[in-house]
Amino acid sequence: MKIIELKETITASNDRDAEVLRSELKEQKTLLVNLMASPGAGKTTLLERTIQDLGSKYRIAVMEADVDSDVDAKRIEMMGAKAVQAHTGGMCHMDAGMTRRALEELNAPESDLVVLENVGNLICPAEFDTGAGKNVMLLSVPEGDDKPLKYPLMFTTSDALLITKIDVLPYFDFDAEKCIERAKKLNPRIKVFLVSSKTGEGMEAWESWLSDAIDSWKQ
Amino acid sequence: MKIIELKETITASNDRDAEVLRSELKEQKTLLVNLMASPGAGKTTLLERTIQDLGSKYRIAVMEADVDSDVDAKRIEMMGAKAVQAHTGGMCHMDAGMTRRALEELNAPESDLVVLENVGNLICPAEFDTGAGKNVMLLSVPEGDDKPLKYPLMFTTSDALLITKIDVLPYFDFDAEKCIERAKKLNPRIKVFLVSSKTGEGMEAWESWLSDAIDSWKQ
Repeated sequence: MKIIELKETITASNDRDAEVLRSELKEQKTLLVNLMASPGAGKTTLLERTIQDLGSKYRIAVMEADVDSDVDAKRIEMMGAKAVQAHTGGMCHMDAGMTRRALEELNAPESDLVVLENVGNLICPAEFDTGAGKNVMLLSVPEGDDKPLKYPLMFTTSDALLITKIDVLPYFDFDAEKCIERAKKLNPRIKVFLVSSKTGEGMEAWESWLSDAIDSWKQ
Repeated sequence: MKIIELKETITASNDRDAEVLRSELKEQKTLLVNLMASPGAGKTTLLERTIQDLGSKYRIAVMEADVDSDVDAKRIEMMGAKAVQAHTGGMCHMDAGMTRRALEELNAPESDLVVLENVGNLICPAEFDTGAGKNVMLLSVPEGDDKPLKYPLMFTTSDALLITKIDVLPYFDFDAEKCIERAKKLNPRIKVFLVSSKTGEGMEAWESWLSDAIDSWKQ
């Protein structure tokens, strides 16, 4: 009897599609950043602030991926950035093929930076390479410092971790040092930033890292 | 060419398994509650408090479902309740078959109430019937009042919605009235409770609803 490992086949074929897409984006000098987090971790608010701060220096476009609604894409458009809303039709993640279709819609080569705001989910998006040049994850203070223990793959696949909503640190039992230690144990090369999109604290360090990533991608 | 809609087949077969499991649990007079939420919405803390308040009245057991770690099962055992940790092996949800295996481990007929703390995820768990008698979801204040718009299926499939962490309402832009209105638009029969497991506010109403559900299940 032949056993077909379906999941492996799907992800292997997605891995190939993602590699091709990444090469094309490199050629076009467009950096694709895949932004991942739980629902409500503050992805859109971070993007609003980042567009406000870097929008005059770089051409930025955003792909909003959601199971439903278009509230996030509307918020991004209000900031003056190009935005497209992708509906995943119940799917819990974006893959390379879906990302490619959304990039075509955006006319990606016109942008220095395209951000894919992935579906709010700490599990599935980490399993599917989207073709992004950088994977960035958010973990908000209210979610708790134990998340690296429970959702390790997301921390392993991310280039940068943004600990968000640090303005509410006084109201939660969140041990930032312990959280960073847990994340670095899973992924020693992960860059960590503590930010508040509300007060602006820590945004400069994150935006400087992102600017460097955009500049390096063009070389 | 024959096209096999694999997902449909999987969920249809799961639906049948779930129905069988639900009938068996009814026969055994054990209510299974499927608790669903984003990562960090406060599922375990709510359970700790609920066990503390109802543990002398009902025999309560808990199944912790996680991609990895056993921190939650340990917390529940500290409260004196029977607990089992199920590792989903990367899977983003529990299905009826996985739930059955965990129930056997717990020796379910010995309990009046078994709570399945599902994987932290607002999307996938809503798609898979676990055989539970009641589906309960949590949405924490820091996640934002727009979540019914983005993750509608979770709100549609839940019997009760607990808006958690209401002690931090002053520090977030969360419109509870708007959130409830959005949830009821998706699911007019959903019961809504505003709770803080930290201060105990609203716990009585939730525990009274849960007690009624346990008592009714035995009839």
